[in-house]
Amino acid sequence: MTESSAAAAGPGAGGPPVEAVHDPAYHQAVIELLGAIAYGELSAFERLAEDAKLAPTLADKVAIGQMAAAEFGHLTRLRERLEALGADPFAAMETFQPGFDSFHRHTAPADWYEGLIKAYVGDGLAADFYREIAAYLDEDTRDLIISALDDSGHSAFVVERVRRGIEQDPRLGGRLALWGRRLMGEALTQAQRVAAERDALTALLAGGVDRPGLDLAALGRMFARLTERHAQRMADLGLDS
Amino acid sequence: MTESSAAAAGPGAGGPPVEAVHDPAYHQAVIELLGAIAYGELSAFERLAEDAKLAPTLADKVAIGQMAAAEFGHLTRLRERLEALGADPFAAMETFQPGFDSFHRHTAPADWYEGLIKAYVGDGLAADFYREIAAYLDEDTRDLIISALDDSGHSAFVVERVRRGIEQDPRLGGRLALWGRRLMGEALTQAQRVAAERDALTALLAGGVDRPGLDLAALGRMFARLTERHAQRMADLGLDS
Repeated sequence: MTESSAAAAGPGAGGPPVEAVHDPAYHQAVIELLGAIAYGELSAFERLAEDAKLAPTLADKVAIGQMAAAEFGHLTRLRERLEALGADPFAAMETFQPGFDSFHRHTAPADWYEGLIKAYVGDGLAADFYREIAAYLDEDTRDLIISALDDSGHSAFVVERVRRGIEQDPRLGGRLALWGRRLMGEALTQAQRVAAERDALTALLAGGVDRPGLDLAALGRMFARLTERHAQRMADLGLDS
Repeated sequence: MTESSAAAAGPGAGGPPVEAVHDPAYHQAVIELLGAIAYGELSAFERLAEDAKLAPTLADKVAIGQMAAAEFGHLTRLRERLEALGADPFAAMETFQPGFDSFHRHTAPADWYEGLIKAYVGDGLAADFYREIAAYLDEDTRDLIISALDDSGHSAFVVERVRRGIEQDPRLGGRLALWGRRLMGEALTQAQRVAAERDALTALLAGGVDRPGLDLAALGRMFARLTERHAQRMADLGLDS
């Protein structure tokens, strides 16, 4: 019980028992998950840097640039952990390049506000999803993932900025609500495709003889929670979902 | 002698005496200088994020993204200092937007290697120039500027990457040498234009009754030093200058 700090979590904390951490399938699933999060951060960085060009003022540009730089900051720790797990971090990330790139190609923002909503709704959804999965992982990995998802108060900027935009131009609200629905649809499409292709990741969610997993009913409840939180984010922005 | 840490530097350390720090013209010059450096960092961030798209591998993309994020990290401290000086940081930065944007428009890299050279040569030249000016400033401002110019070991990545590229394709060397000369020419053109427009900054360099400045001979020597260091950087890359 002392050889790994994962043991400290114990099954009671929701993580797997320590034996699972040394299971090759679990090990592979963690590499895939960290690779997905790392590539997601890199592509969020690129997308935010691109959106910074649409910023109407220099102050807005700096705010978006700061969000982009924060995504990059998380990447360093994820890469280090992937290396510590004996994985090539770039190979682990590359696996998820087609899925994320396709998501971004299908959801290129037409203007500054669409970019803001995408940053807020997309990152929020991804963070919720990874947090749900993290509950099934050992403590070390869980802590790493949760700290990588910290938004450093950027949500507050987006909410304030979008609400101000809608105040100035109420027609904006209808368009942005539609945009939010489209983002959710595209995210689900891509997530489903990735899940179908990554056996180790889906096996992780399904659990195993020595660790708890999600049955179909639990998966349904998780999906309901993700949808509820998405609706809450849209409401925070002053938008229908 | 105790009211400001600038006093600790004393004239012997190359900075102005403490009275100069409270001189409105000096104050304005410092705001202009910090605004120029801050906008330069923001535009370097944008340019590097754009160049990341040209990266041939994911590892290269991450390396360039990390350089971009580092530029952003410096920006926060510069903004805080501008605010402490009673200036609107965005207004201070905006002044320099046309000059930097024009420089970048005239030096859009055609490929990954041109982007790398531009990051290395451009940032190196800017850093040398600001360091030269910093010698004429109070200690606090000098320290802030010098820490904002820290390249966090990114130069080593560029040098290694460009040398490897030339090894693989020796014709690249000739084209990149020409590109380096063009970058130097454009940088001088823009610097001259900015100097002609910003009276407070040029007055700072010229000195005043209560602080040392640069006479024409000293300005010539400074220019010679900047050129020599540029030539050294080109040599480090394995390129003629």
